[in-house]
Amino acid sequence: MSRYARVTPPGRPTQWAVERGGELWGLGDQVPAGVDDSAWLDLTAHGPSARQLEQATPLVPDAVRWELPVARPGKVICLGLNYAAHAAEGGNAAPEYPSFFMRGASSLIAHGAPLVRPRVSDKLDFEAELAVVIGRRARHLTEADALSAVAGYACFNDGTLRDYQRRTAQWTIGKNFDGTGGFGPWLVPAADLPPGAAGLKVESRLNGRVMQSDDTGHMIVTVARALVLLSEVLTLEPGDVIAMGTPSGVGYARTPPVWMQPGDRIEIEIEGVGLLANPVVQEEG
Amino acid sequence: MSRYARVTPPGRPTQWAVERGGELWGLGDQVPAGVDDSAWLDLTAHGPSARQLEQATPLVPDAVRWELPVARPGKVICLGLNYAAHAAEGGNAAPEYPSFFMRGASSLIAHGAPLVRPRVSDKLDFEAELAVVIGRRARHLTEADALSAVAGYACFNDGTLRDYQRRTAQWTIGKNFDGTGGFGPWLVPAADLPPGAAGLKVESRLNGRVMQSDDTGHMIVTVARALVLLSEVLTLEPGDVIAMGTPSGVGYARTPPVWMQPGDRIEIEIEGVGLLANPVVQEEG
Repeated sequence: MSRYARVTPPGRPTQWAVERGGELWGLGDQVPAGVDDSAWLDLTAHGPSARQLEQATPLVPDAVRWELPVARPGKVICLGLNYAAHAAEGGNAAPEYPSFFMRGASSLIAHGAPLVRPRVSDKLDFEAELAVVIGRRARHLTEADALSAVAGYACFNDGTLRDYQRRTAQWTIGKNFDGTGGFGPWLVPAADLPPGAAGLKVESRLNGRVMQSDDTGHMIVTVARALVLLSEVLTLEPGDVIAMGTPSGVGYARTPPVWMQPGDRIEIEIEGVGLLANPVVQEEG
Repeated sequence: MSRYARVTPPGRPTQWAVERGGELWGLGDQVPAGVDDSAWLDLTAHGPSARQLEQATPLVPDAVRWELPVARPGKVICLGLNYAAHAAEGGNAAPEYPSFFMRGASSLIAHGAPLVRPRVSDKLDFEAELAVVIGRRARHLTEADALSAVAGYACFNDGTLRDYQRRTAQWTIGKNFDGTGGFGPWLVPAADLPPGAAGLKVESRLNGRVMQSDDTGHMIVTVARALVLLSEVLTLEPGDVIAMGTPSGVGYARTPPVWMQPGDRIEIEIEGVGLLANPVVQEEG
């Protein structure tokens, strides 16, 4: 099993790296890592070639800057209320059809980057989620072929300003603050995980304290079903990201509510997928 | 006054064109028109140079394929319920804060392209809107400087599948069907229109019948105010598109409801901005 990440080593260009045997290997310019490059689709589908590995250079994980696993997703589509217990904690019934909304790519931050509490609100909440990264153009998928459109999976933190989320019935604005959507560090090929990435432990920890802990097998709408429903409507494109909704235990539903504060560290961990960690900072100004 | 469009003449590459004195002039490869090219910002801000005009070639408007005025917007953010009469026709109060939601770029179609009624719904509705195209990165704009972030304006048809819009409280999915968001044909520089593009007649016509007719000066949230509210939350980026909401007269609120049908022609016209026309077709399959 290999995991892949986009990283920027000190003084060197952004590149794809592969983790093998616990070590991180930079592929340099062998697999272009720019916004419009699609060579990552081959890399994550087939693994690095012997030649690529031969020419790879060892990297120090603590020394690189982690980048988003998809440089610039065309669409970031999120499912709301996709775990029954989370729907219930917000006073919602478990839905028959998921509540889809979108995040702009400008809201995303990579592993290790500051998660920003904005000037205008202190109601900053975390949401541990499984992210699906699309690997090919797809429309009108069926339950039988839907998972063939998945390149891989990643950790996602659907960071939310709860008061802005509820200013109107549309959640979008509370989900789109700059620097609030954690994504990464790893892209794990679909072939290296159970079908639909089901049955994996998903957890969030705030300063080491477990806040959410559930199993991706408890999602109401599975990955395959979500892709069927979405592709009934629109064309999924390589690099599109689907965030699959969050389990119970979020900050706003607690008594008293728990909001992320500057100085905090928020971690999202999914079994076999990785650990996404971000320090929380206050927006300047 | 000049207007600008991205067009593909027969057998030639996609290029920027300028309309001057009622004639369309193609700028060829003088102003790159690809997805990542930003030369259009200079073009629309300062107009074509004497040399560019000298080397321009005349185009036949009826013979070109019209392209989206922004090849691939990073974000498409829409305001709901931004005309009091439209809020009222849907049984909604005029809101204090706009209902923001997003469209994916994959839902957009250019002038003249087929607007697609999908297999899964016949509740296809039109929404005539003013689109704002962002010209520079901007965060924390004020009412005084907000309009300086605008490159120009275009016509927009926020095409909607009403049943999907209301499957949950989140409108997003009903706003994201492939081939339902008309955008263009012209990008009109902000300097050539009144501040905030206010006071312009905005109209939709279905097969020549006027369905919506209002004035952009009746928007509850002005362009400047929308940019202040958005940039409080996120970074506006060049090429981002803000669709400013639609006047009353949409199809679903009529008795009986009026849905767009294959064979129909829907036109959105905004005074001084242009005429966006699309034929309606049935999705194949």
